[in-house]
Amino acid sequence: MKLLFIVLDGLGDRPIPEYGGMTPLEYADTPNMDKFASLGMNGLLHVIAPGVTPGSDTAHLALFGADPFEFYTGRGPFEAAGLGLDVKEGDVAFRTNFATIDENCIIKDRRAGRIKNGTRELAELFDGMKVDDIQILLKAGTEHRAALILRGPGLSDQVSENDPHVEGNKPYEFKPLDESESAKKTASVLNKFAKRASSILSEATINKDREKNGLLPANYFLIRGAGKVPKLPNFEEEYCLETACVAGGGLYKGIARMLGMHIIEDERLTGGITTDLAAKFDVALDSLQNYDFIFVHVKGTDNFGHDGDVQGKTEFIKKVDKELARFLPDNYKEDLVVMITGDHSSPCSFKDHSADPVPILICSPDCRRDEVEKFGESYAVKGNLGHVLGKHIMGIALNEMRLVQKFGA
Amino acid sequence: MKLLFIVLDGLGDRPIPEYGGMTPLEYADTPNMDKFASLGMNGLLHVIAPGVTPGSDTAHLALFGADPFEFYTGRGPFEAAGLGLDVKEGDVAFRTNFATIDENCIIKDRRAGRIKNGTRELAELFDGMKVDDIQILLKAGTEHRAALILRGPGLSDQVSENDPHVEGNKPYEFKPLDESESAKKTASVLNKFAKRASSILSEATINKDREKNGLLPANYFLIRGAGKVPKLPNFEEEYCLETACVAGGGLYKGIARMLGMHIIEDERLTGGITTDLAAKFDVALDSLQNYDFIFVHVKGTDNFGHDGDVQGKTEFIKKVDKELARFLPDNYKEDLVVMITGDHSSPCSFKDHSADPVPILICSPDCRRDEVEKFGESYAVKGNLGHVLGKHIMGIALNEMRLVQKFGA
Repeated sequence: MKLLFIVLDGLGDRPIPEYGGMTPLEYADTPNMDKFASLGMNGLLHVIAPGVTPGSDTAHLALFGADPFEFYTGRGPFEAAGLGLDVKEGDVAFRTNFATIDENCIIKDRRAGRIKNGTRELAELFDGMKVDDIQILLKAGTEHRAALILRGPGLSDQVSENDPHVEGNKPYEFKPLDESESAKKTASVLNKFAKRASSILSEATINKDREKNGLLPANYFLIRGAGKVPKLPNFEEEYCLETACVAGGGLYKGIARMLGMHIIEDERLTGGITTDLAAKFDVALDSLQNYDFIFVHVKGTDNFGHDGDVQGKTEFIKKVDKELARFLPDNYKEDLVVMITGDHSSPCSFKDHSADPVPILICSPDCRRDEVEKFGESYAVKGNLGHVLGKHIMGIALNEMRLVQKFGA
Repeated sequence: MKLLFIVLDGLGDRPIPEYGGMTPLEYADTPNMDKFASLGMNGLLHVIAPGVTPGSDTAHLALFGADPFEFYTGRGPFEAAGLGLDVKEGDVAFRTNFATIDENCIIKDRRAGRIKNGTRELAELFDGMKVDDIQILLKAGTEHRAALILRGPGLSDQVSENDPHVEGNKPYEFKPLDESESAKKTASVLNKFAKRASSILSEATINKDREKNGLLPANYFLIRGAGKVPKLPNFEEEYCLETACVAGGGLYKGIARMLGMHIIEDERLTGGITTDLAAKFDVALDSLQNYDFIFVHVKGTDNFGHDGDVQGKTEFIKKVDKELARFLPDNYKEDLVVMITGDHSSPCSFKDHSADPVPILICSPDCRRDEVEKFGESYAVKGNLGHVLGKHIMGIALNEMRLVQKFGA
């Protein structure tokens, strides 16, 4: 028995007056999702808890059964993992910007002129660097963005940032945020690193060339978002499942990697509203041959919600639905558990995340079907999953896979 | 107002194709349970939490409001209590086998030839025994099985077992599983006990006779399942209720004893599929005269689930239903709260426990009736108890008994 877990980011919405009070999901023609709903169990999902508005990071932790109140230490570790850094328990991870300072150490641009090229080479200058007994791991992301990891004994994430968040100021010194020796040590390492990094960056050919060409040199690191890397549950170890992540966004891949999933790399896997949905679900279908549990992340629904684009969200949902036909029992002949939901609601009227619950459906060959016939916020109310919490859905899905882990004897 | 709490072990199930998608409970003709359902409140019970598959031990703790995440330390204490040992908070309890070793201390039989008689007398040889300052309590169960309790200061359940689980090996030494003094002491006491016990058993007349008759002597204890006895809530003290347990299985009686219930002893109270259901519910009816709260445990439903015997489970449910007529308001004229549920689902298709919720009904003379007319998994979805957790049902039942314990003023 295999599991296909599809997360439509920001799926949930609110009644749209022009749709006669239906939501985009309810208004969209979605015969395939409706088929899964009618064959399966339906409910309303509170990803973290009723009334709590999830972020994308905390939401995905909760969906995978990793209580964000326990495991969420900041976004740094997940962004670092998303860039492909091999984060380890105990590492302290940061988000960082390549920035520009002048000869008096005044910040001229917090994003080094939104530098497009060369950051990968600049980051490689730090390969193998150590500050005291602490190893430095650095990886460039898109534009001016990068992730920094400190690895070694006696580190803490209780340190302030050096980013004043305005230009024309000097960067701050890093300071310990508590009395611990580990916080003092981490602040000291960061201060030494920022200084040495600035020298190294200033001497780099790429930056000399940028200056010659009238571009701002990327000669400083502004560092923020300290988070100690938590030990997340490991799917493969805990459930003896071969798991795969089919996603575009770095955050989602990062969380999946930290949970021990295999990340399917394919350049067609992107995260925007123009993503190739057919390719994404083709990859998911292929992956079902080699993996037991496929996590598919689709970002576009959330983007339309943030833009308040009702029609765009509706059309995008229809496009997703079309691609799901390949997983219907008539077309996919192996035993399969299908779970479809969102990581949170992003109502078009909010243009942001909300705490509204998201519809969820779980369909397996011999599940206890309920009477719900369509997938949607108001239909799900009558489903037999009732109101369900994010932290419980993996257990419910694993039960449908008959992967029973008895508590007690 | 009195409370009759009937637990049909492993009651919940999944749709059976030959039953047109109904479960055994839904398909079985159960006019009496249906009457209680129509007069009462219905819902779906997640005994521990949604998606968590309960063991029999953790399930019953949860049903009685004792959070298994807090109180469950292993099966040892409950098995020991089930054999009638008077377990006390702080005791460390174990499951043990009478076994056979040869003159070189090699295990010849982990079950001493499944010894049938004489273990009670052998266990009595240890009455009053002390190892250092630790008191030994030992009681024989069925065949080769027994329970061992260590009582005294500074004990821990963080000790390994001496049972290699294969024959032809020597028993293991007991080892502490952490650095604590209490774990070291407990391992030391167990090593001394195992050695002294082996001498005592080897000299016992019963074993000399067994050897003369070509039978394997019960000359060693294989000891496992260490659990520190938790302090469970006490029903009689907490609620000022006279409580009684009507059950056959040792585990259920053990948990009930540890919760402070009176155990009704009657040789007709057994736990299998051939148990005398009329006798069991006769005893329950009689007990309502002297007790306020009767817990009735019926095991057969679970046995049929484990065997995958759909028809057997269906017929057994019908037989149980027949015995419930005596508690209907038309027949039982005193005020009575009736609560019927299972401790978990044991779907015939799983042949094991599952995480599927179990239907629950609670019926009292003036409860808020819902529109549910029949007792069953899919009907319960529409009941007014909604999705309810095991840890909450005692409070709901006590509220029906008007035993209100206000939190706050």
